[in-house]
Amino acid sequence: METHSHPYVPQDLHLPGYVPCFLSMSTILSVYAVSSILVISFVWIFSGRIPKKTKVERLLMCWWAFTGLTHMIVEGYFVFAPEFFKDKSGFYLAEVWKEYSKGDSRYAARDAGIVTVEGLTAVLEGPACLLAIYAIATGKSYSYILQFAISLGQLYGTAVYFITAILEGDNFSTSSFYYYAYYIAANASWVVIPSIIAIRCWRNICAAFRVQGGQTKKPKVR
Amino acid sequence: METHSHPYVPQDLHLPGYVPCFLSMSTILSVYAVSSILVISFVWIFSGRIPKKTKVERLLMCWWAFTGLTHMIVEGYFVFAPEFFKDKSGFYLAEVWKEYSKGDSRYAARDAGIVTVEGLTAVLEGPACLLAIYAIATGKSYSYILQFAISLGQLYGTAVYFITAILEGDNFSTSSFYYYAYYIAANASWVVIPSIIAIRCWRNICAAFRVQGGQTKKPKVR
Repeated sequence: METHSHPYVPQDLHLPGYVPCFLSMSTILSVYAVSSILVISFVWIFSGRIPKKTKVERLLMCWWAFTGLTHMIVEGYFVFAPEFFKDKSGFYLAEVWKEYSKGDSRYAARDAGIVTVEGLTAVLEGPACLLAIYAIATGKSYSYILQFAISLGQLYGTAVYFITAILEGDNFSTSSFYYYAYYIAANASWVVIPSIIAIRCWRNICAAFRVQGGQTKKPKVR
Repeated sequence: METHSHPYVPQDLHLPGYVPCFLSMSTILSVYAVSSILVISFVWIFSGRIPKKTKVERLLMCWWAFTGLTHMIVEGYFVFAPEFFKDKSGFYLAEVWKEYSKGDSRYAARDAGIVTVEGLTAVLEGPACLLAIYAIATGKSYSYILQFAISLGQLYGTAVYFITAILEGDNFSTSSFYYYAYYIAANASWVVIPSIIAIRCWRNICAAFRVQGGQTKKPKVR
């Protein structure tokens, strides 16, 4: 098996059968950006046809569609394709992870913590995000607690992601460009947005209990 | 530095300065059991003096006291004492982790995933458990969402704990006795009880929104 030298750090990382990226960084990012914009536009237009949905609710539906499909398709591929770095076909999702590993080589190295977090995210949180769109669209009583649960899962996963890296020396990036562009910037959305959503859900849930408290002093389990 | 051979698996785990357990297994477990019974008894009696608390609420307060103090004291010690396996003083908490490492040597080996999960558990979830006792005692509107958040964090942590072990070969126990007694049985409570509490909170929160939905169709953010 022919092995090319890989661009990842640490350089002694053993990746037998590694095949370099076929697609350029701009191609990879453009495909992801255009797909995301298409998904978000579709959900924004579709949600505008549902009566009595506020702009915040419609924005949330866009976020859940974007993040849910990212979890299921992009991260799902990583979880179930341990040998993506050997891909010779130029398959887009393999290229994504070959490229992203320049920001965090633990992906190519198949670090157990990374695979675990990505597995929970892809398999549990991904489908739950799509359920959240349905819950918001139809005004289900579980809408807030579901969104809260997913956001907390995303925050826990991101915390594990960053803290394990720090404990292991924080030296998995090919260069400081990839460190800040991929490892920091690409993950920042999954810290900021879930935090905002979790706080919003927390407040709404507390408000619902205060309303209920005005009727009967103590909520009853069904 | 004198190094004793350690009892952990894998046997080639390098633990320079390791000092064997001073306390017997029965002593370690008895101290934990007696302390836990004292805490639970105290909270049960104390909660009986609060008007209108149901038995379920009082049991929950006992659980949050037990699990919160375990997180803060026992797991907190592990997080901030990376060299517990070198302890020569027979200090109880160091002995706990020397003993528990027979069920999961990743503790002695200071695995990054373990330290991360234990860190989040000790630093965030521990104090949150004590807040949950106060929230139940005083009937705060955030009582259910707080208990839900902690339970979900415990479940996510336990999932990371078990899945990373499986991905890394599930071979960290000194014997099958320690595997089942420590690694499986001791952790089972933190799968079963948080699941039950999370389901109970989910149902109560949905019920609160149905009550609120009877008044105004859509909950408002404050």
